[in-house]
Amino acid sequence: MEIMSILLCLMFLFFTVVTDAMHLPQGSYHPLSLRQNKRASKTKPELPFHFRTRYFPQNLDHFSFQPESYRIFHQKYLISSHFWRKGGPIFVYTGNEADIEWFASNTGFMLDIAPKFQALVVFIEHRFYGESKPQMLAKTMGYLNSQQALADYAILIRSLKQNLSSEASPVVVFGGSYGGMLAAWFRLKYPHIAIGALASSAPILQFDKMAPSSSFYDTVSQDFKDVSVNCFEVIKRSWGELEAFLTIKDGKQKLSKKFRTCKDLQSLASASLWLESAFVDTAMVNYPTAANFMAPLPAYPVEQMCKIIDGFPLGASSNLERAFAAASLYYNYSGSEICFDMENQTDPHGLAFWGWQACTEMVMPMSSSNQSMFPPFENDDEGEQELCMLAYGVKSRPHWITTEFGGQRIEMVLKRFGSNIIFSNGMQDPWSRGGVLKNISNSIIALVTKKGAHHTDLRAATKYDPEWLKEQRRQEVAIIEKWINEYYSDLRQEEQD
Amino acid sequence: MEIMSILLCLMFLFFTVVTDAMHLPQGSYHPLSLRQNKRASKTKPELPFHFRTRYFPQNLDHFSFQPESYRIFHQKYLISSHFWRKGGPIFVYTGNEADIEWFASNTGFMLDIAPKFQALVVFIEHRFYGESKPQMLAKTMGYLNSQQALADYAILIRSLKQNLSSEASPVVVFGGSYGGMLAAWFRLKYPHIAIGALASSAPILQFDKMAPSSSFYDTVSQDFKDVSVNCFEVIKRSWGELEAFLTIKDGKQKLSKKFRTCKDLQSLASASLWLESAFVDTAMVNYPTAANFMAPLPAYPVEQMCKIIDGFPLGASSNLERAFAAASLYYNYSGSEICFDMENQTDPHGLAFWGWQACTEMVMPMSSSNQSMFPPFENDDEGEQELCMLAYGVKSRPHWITTEFGGQRIEMVLKRFGSNIIFSNGMQDPWSRGGVLKNISNSIIALVTKKGAHHTDLRAATKYDPEWLKEQRRQEVAIIEKWINEYYSDLRQEEQD
Repeated sequence: MEIMSILLCLMFLFFTVVTDAMHLPQGSYHPLSLRQNKRASKTKPELPFHFRTRYFPQNLDHFSFQPESYRIFHQKYLISSHFWRKGGPIFVYTGNEADIEWFASNTGFMLDIAPKFQALVVFIEHRFYGESKPQMLAKTMGYLNSQQALADYAILIRSLKQNLSSEASPVVVFGGSYGGMLAAWFRLKYPHIAIGALASSAPILQFDKMAPSSSFYDTVSQDFKDVSVNCFEVIKRSWGELEAFLTIKDGKQKLSKKFRTCKDLQSLASASLWLESAFVDTAMVNYPTAANFMAPLPAYPVEQMCKIIDGFPLGASSNLERAFAAASLYYNYSGSEICFDMENQTDPHGLAFWGWQACTEMVMPMSSSNQSMFPPFENDDEGEQELCMLAYGVKSRPHWITTEFGGQRIEMVLKRFGSNIIFSNGMQDPWSRGGVLKNISNSIIALVTKKGAHHTDLRAATKYDPEWLKEQRRQEVAIIEKWINEYYSDLRQEEQD
Repeated sequence: MEIMSILLCLMFLFFTVVTDAMHLPQGSYHPLSLRQNKRASKTKPELPFHFRTRYFPQNLDHFSFQPESYRIFHQKYLISSHFWRKGGPIFVYTGNEADIEWFASNTGFMLDIAPKFQALVVFIEHRFYGESKPQMLAKTMGYLNSQQALADYAILIRSLKQNLSSEASPVVVFGGSYGGMLAAWFRLKYPHIAIGALASSAPILQFDKMAPSSSFYDTVSQDFKDVSVNCFEVIKRSWGELEAFLTIKDGKQKLSKKFRTCKDLQSLASASLWLESAFVDTAMVNYPTAANFMAPLPAYPVEQMCKIIDGFPLGASSNLERAFAAASLYYNYSGSEICFDMENQTDPHGLAFWGWQACTEMVMPMSSSNQSMFPPFENDDEGEQELCMLAYGVKSRPHWITTEFGGQRIEMVLKRFGSNIIFSNGMQDPWSRGGVLKNISNSIIALVTKKGAHHTDLRAATKYDPEWLKEQRRQEVAIIEKWINEYYSDLRQEEQD
């Protein structure tokens, strides 16, 4: 299976969840944008009672003055002043590519630490996701991008502070994954609005071949290999067995039966992607405690998957059967699914437009090397760009992110410029290799945990949290506290001058 | 005379130089955008033989992916590799609101210091000025703004370095006036592309009432008062005498004769503006040596104007006659003008589109206080915005510049963030009060000269330069040298790691 078939397959999958006007392929892989577990759709995120929902009238386009720039859309945000002392800090989550409730309910860290800081807590939804959609989507999609989103946040935060008569309150931005990129970039581009950023699992170096394109799949594979070499080998061998169904009579029907699909498979690629997604996403959410971010899962689910694979009696089952059993953990941890609807996955959090972003600016080259447990494929920029042109009629700008936000020689640049950013990464996370993993300066800090997964640190604390996670969060709190104290001290001094 | 009449008058003046589709008032005053001396149009800028002219295909819109975003315009730039050692530094002038040759021929400093640094020298023209105009101007004007211009520079510089196989060359940006704002903002927004910026006479604090709105006219007035209180008083009294022509029979014809206009005046406001421009512009270019930036003028032209005023025999002439004689120095230093075409001023450097910028984002509040030698007027944001709506059908965004680029509490923000910017200002310059006049950190430096005018330091050295100017340039060279040495040292260290 190579990239083209993955993409075509994804296009197919997503056609069911988007409007006719939007033909949405997936240009690049992204944690929160590729695959959705049907189970997750059934669990509605719960937010504390003290959150209020607000809508802010936002210009469609901040960077030009064309007549259509002035079109208004209503940007949703969630706000809690439950712990706030007026004049105290404001913690803002820079929303990413889904409805904001989903991120709010999976970023408990901000609420956990709000009482200590007597902070206002705000979660801002990213334009074009959730309820924050302009009208005439098909005609306005071009305004969906990271720079416009950052400007949205700048304008909304400034207005909010003014309305609250708290212009001098320090703002700290938080974000995970693409939201983490936005948080880091926000601090870099709008230092006059945010005094610091906690950018968790932000693969800002995944662009323009700064990180090896194979690092994503290599890391997933390593996660499994670290648990069990046999587990890794079984999964690695399963793809060939799956492909063999192509060559046998009634292969699709036979595989459908084996994989307990609700309807007969239209394409074997769907089954392949279904399997792959289970392993990739489980590696991403390989949290040390039971959690329900992309799907309800037990603690350290990669270990659990390998236990399933390694637990089969020797020689009793094929590699594919074992791989299927392991993947079922991801899709059916509760055991209540009777069948799997592999070709009709839902999109409960509204991630579909990420396809557009991946086709325009968020171009993250991907490949699978011989070292990975997935079928190997080369990075194919041109193929992806052709697909994007086909699907959206849009030309990718693969070098734009590094032109606008930098990344090359990042240590050299940022050790002489900028301050107050935490880049946190868990090395279990497939995206970690695209992150900043070394301290750049005294105040641009990399916090790396060996056992962390995709923005583990942003999750609410639980009584089962391991010591390394508690320690990581303690460090984050201490650093944020330093920023805030420094800010108030500077403010007092300025007022005396 | 208050702001509305000035604006209406400007609208009238500029109607002659722009297309019918563009109705261009002047929203705010700006040094390089308001007034043009006809004399200046006759002197074609001369550039050294070793400059080459190039054109770069640039996207119309960097911040959205709409179909029209991909329209190409050709951005002009001038390049000289005469002094360049390959791999050496690249000095880039971030062009402002006129044709690039004009700035290149008035920014000799960059060429003066290029041999010492073995630097490549590049002057990039600002979009929508000079030859760098997109097609269908009336429909694309919305893409004329500072953020798009900065992105143009980022893309062009990156491409240029790649084409020259000099990706590791350090880039230093230079700019004066609005070009100086762009240079400073470029360093702040694109630190991965420019290692430092010399921002000369950049009034980045003239927005959103950070600097007093009266500071511009107050400074012009102080310049004249410092030379001679009588000179100041004569000019201050002249406006009333001019206005009196409104009330007398055949006043316009009589004033036309007095002011030696080529045709009878349509409006007294034109004469008033003509006078005012002479004093304002002369204060801006009150250089210590003879120069020809906005008009050919002797050294310290404010002194010369006041000599003319003070030289009249006591009681022999009216204040208005004296003011007219002084203004004639600006418009007719060579003495070759037979008459003055006050209502049909030319625009030889193509400044007209500044009106659009002043109506959209470059909103700099202006007023004239009782302390000034000009007729007093209040700042009238609403009036200006109405005029902008009338003229362009565009809504101003008066708070956008401070949202996008900051400015409020700039010392607090930038002492903890950013590096390597020189803000140079001459206190004779009316724009100086909107500049950064105090050191912010070890590497964000304010160089202030008491006798300097509008970006005096950027001009080519002459043998008549005073010691303070030589010293200012020495400091600038030393600072830039430090940036470059530090960069190469960092680069060597990075390569060793």
